[in-house]
Amino acid sequence: MKKPMVVATILEELRSERSLLSEPVGFVPTMGYLHDGHLSLIRRAVEECVSVVVSIFVNPTQFGPKEDLATYPRDIEGDLRKLESMGVNLVWIPTSEVMYPGGYQTWVDVETLTLPLEGKLRPGHFRGVTTVVVKLFNGVLPGKAYFGQKDAQQVAVIRQMTRDLNIPTEIVVCPIIREPDGLAMSSRNAYLDPDQRKAAAVLFLALTNAKDAYGKGERNGENLRVLVREMIVAESLAEIQYVSCADFGTLQELDTLTGKTLLSIAVFFGKTRLIDNIVLV
Amino acid sequence: MKKPMVVATILEELRSERSLLSEPVGFVPTMGYLHDGHLSLIRRAVEECVSVVVSIFVNPTQFGPKEDLATYPRDIEGDLRKLESMGVNLVWIPTSEVMYPGGYQTWVDVETLTLPLEGKLRPGHFRGVTTVVVKLFNGVLPGKAYFGQKDAQQVAVIRQMTRDLNIPTEIVVCPIIREPDGLAMSSRNAYLDPDQRKAAAVLFLALTNAKDAYGKGERNGENLRVLVREMIVAESLAEIQYVSCADFGTLQELDTLTGKTLLSIAVFFGKTRLIDNIVLV
Repeated sequence: MKKPMVVATILEELRSERSLLSEPVGFVPTMGYLHDGHLSLIRRAVEECVSVVVSIFVNPTQFGPKEDLATYPRDIEGDLRKLESMGVNLVWIPTSEVMYPGGYQTWVDVETLTLPLEGKLRPGHFRGVTTVVVKLFNGVLPGKAYFGQKDAQQVAVIRQMTRDLNIPTEIVVCPIIREPDGLAMSSRNAYLDPDQRKAAAVLFLALTNAKDAYGKGERNGENLRVLVREMIVAESLAEIQYVSCADFGTLQELDTLTGKTLLSIAVFFGKTRLIDNIVLV
Repeated sequence: MKKPMVVATILEELRSERSLLSEPVGFVPTMGYLHDGHLSLIRRAVEECVSVVVSIFVNPTQFGPKEDLATYPRDIEGDLRKLESMGVNLVWIPTSEVMYPGGYQTWVDVETLTLPLEGKLRPGHFRGVTTVVVKLFNGVLPGKAYFGQKDAQQVAVIRQMTRDLNIPTEIVVCPIIREPDGLAMSSRNAYLDPDQRKAAAVLFLALTNAKDAYGKGERNGENLRVLVREMIVAESLAEIQYVSCADFGTLQELDTLTGKTLLSIAVFFGKTRLIDNIVLV
């Protein structure tokens, strides 16, 4: 009979329960409030690994002082029911005091890849992400870890960090999961009022419109950015923060597309900031 | 029959050979040119662990632009003979290209503890140390890692980093090994000419003189610093860079000693910079 799912808080509990798991161990780090995007990562981990660990931690160090740390949606009971039903073996729910005790002072920085896009608009965000991912990995010691392509720059940064620091974990990137109208799944979608929610469908429409143009031969970066911008600007509830057409590897903006390209956007609906992206190959 | 010692260069070789070792695995990171100080760490690792890994890597990122990276003494053949005779199982000798390939961009920083002393005088030094130690640990995956108290601030920084990042390795700190006249063993002692070498004995004499005063009840930090300074200044070949009397845990300079205290010094003999320390308890 399968052992029931275990929930650990402090590091010592996690290490002790982790040591009992059969290899290979897959890991899905989350901030909770699990939606179908998270569940697709967990499903993949369950398929590929003998044991699966999920963490739920709303990491304060990756939020800016004016961001939504306090209001970030939480539903631990609902999350645990979902995880248990999917066959997850171990859930780590550390507190902020466990992760960042008094005197905490160590940070992991990825330099170049964190400069544009999210890194430029959210100073300190990626330092928080890379640091917490190293801490989570060192606790869980996974063979594979699963991340969503939704956070495209995060994925690029974590891959770079894993390679640079010799981290012995394979990074598996899973496709974006979308609502029926194309809106990328995100815990932050819960902030949208009905009108904003309806309007937010424009993001995927704008990205696919640009992808169609790319499919028809458009290779000018600025033309693709303008195509995306024009469609989003036409939606009055949307306020664009950036529209980027960048090299998939370096995340540098492109004049002319030559290889794999990341088309990515950040758009406000009221106070809610949504991001989305599409890869052009 | 014991398997002969294996030497690995690239990460894949290291990982493959590491996976064959019996647990627990002890690890001694070095910059080579091994002296009795290193050998004492290795001896301790051999005593405490079933398998022992040693790395030899003169890490460029922990040297400042005006420091002695190019001239740092090297003797790989001699080092390998010593390691083989001590029963070391695996030696990792990565190249700079293996450790820092083109596009490398990830750094580990410990903040507060790296501000005074060596960190103040050698900007970037500890960022290089902490980053390479994380990389070496992620390659070797040791249960225990052995460091010398000679580099007292390095030990404090690595302990803090290990705790902060949840690194699953026990940090073992071994006592300073000294020449018959008290000079702490260091690869950099090879730079000293005969007069400087003779003069350098003043360092330990000055530290023990202050320790004697402490033993007789001296608890004023400045008085202890002055005691050390006066004895070193009397040696004409010595040029003091710093004399510190600091809290052992925080490395903050002390007016009045109340608990465990680190008395540490950095002194030039010609172009050769030597450090030493003594703990007052």
